[in-house]
Amino acid sequence: MSTQAQINLPEFSRGFHIITSIIENNIELPKTGILHVFIKHTSAGLTINENADFTVREDFESSFNHIIKENEPFYRHTFEGSDDMPAHIKSSLVGSSVSVPITNGRLNLGTWQGIYLCEFRNHGGRRNLVLTITS
Amino acid sequence: MSTQAQINLPEFSRGFHIITSIIENNIELPKTGILHVFIKHTSAGLTINENADFTVREDFESSFNHIIKENEPFYRHTFEGSDDMPAHIKSSLVGSSVSVPITNGRLNLGTWQGIYLCEFRNHGGRRNLVLTITS
Amino acid sequence: MSTQAQINLPEFSRGFHIITSIIENNIELPKTGILHVFIKHTSAGLTINENADFTVREDFESSFNHIIKENEPFYRHTFEGSDDMPAHIKSSLVGSSVSVPITNGRLNLGTWQGIYLCEFRNHGGRRNLVLTITS
Repeated sequence: MSTQAQINLPEFSRGFHIITSIIENNIELPKTGILHVFIKHTSAGLTINENADFTVREDFESSFNHIIKENEPFYRHTFEGSDDMPAHIKSSLVGSSVSVPITNGRLNLGTWQGIYLCEFRNHGGRRNLVLTITS
Repeated sequence: MSTQAQINLPEFSRGFHIITSIIENNIELPKTGILHVFIKHTSAGLTINENADFTVREDFESSFNHIIKENEPFYRHTFEGSDDMPAHIKSSLVGSSVSVPITNGRLNLGTWQGIYLCEFRNHGGRRNLVLTITS
Repeated sequence: MSTQAQINLPEFSRGFHIITSIIENNIELPKTGILHVFIKHTSAGLTINENADFTVREDFESSFNHIIKENEPFYRHTFEGSDDMPAHIKSSLVGSSVSVPITNGRLNLGTWQGIYLCEFRNHGGRRNLVLTITS
């Protein structure tokens, strides 16, 4: 049987933010299964990465801006601002969901892993997540 | 209990195409669960992104061609054509599956989200999908 | 009911390696369901791609090194070596999990698909995977 919860996150600034504990506080975990986290937006994404050194998250922001640049001459979808089309590309590169194994009633993340909200817009507003557990 | 269906898509041109309704028409959704969509190919992929403005999909094609170029001097796998090796890289960047929460018997996508077939070959032919629901 | 297994892989060199059979040998597949493979690390990843020509895997290594370069002047997280920050970025681009449909008791991969371990560090050591089946 699957169980589900929805979260309306607080607004985050453009960049990469650890939201593991927000997720853990919003759903009860079974002994074994999979937690699926889905973001209902196309200019923000989710990924799993390093949870300790904040310069990693800063380098994520720099790197993504370097790889997927604003104001490329070939962009046609420009009317929502220079941060919009790059945000769509970036969100498909990280993806709109992460899924994490649940073992002994806890998220079975590695020692250094955290779940990131990737906010790619300058003013993305509050983002909606859907948490689903299959066990 | 999981249920499953397979789809042989019609051939799509190189580019990014919304296939949400094709998927919805080929499987019955339970009240709650996860729909997993898998593509059985290594030069096409799946992602979730903006479903309204077609220039977004055109900018996806331009951006992916800009980030992962054809005819890089370091490519060794070249005998299947200049579009082949970039297609493999692109398909791993978007991924070979998407999974979407099911809530109240419907795909719980955001207002602007659609499921994209990412066709990275010039003539990729018909692509096979496997739909699996866990509930 | 979900079932789970954990694998401590042998050490692999930097690059892309097919690990499909290692995974298949470590868990029993049901008739229908989803196999979720998760890597508990932030400088290695998992993806699904071409299983036949080894030059594809070599071109993956060249391409990822070209797209996400070492020693970028904007990196701040540098104390773990020049391969470390690029490894974090690369791992979020491919992702920390793959999920594969199970049909008639077998992984329903396409003819040319294999599961890759993406080792992004020069000396990443042995990597831990969690296999979870939901059926």
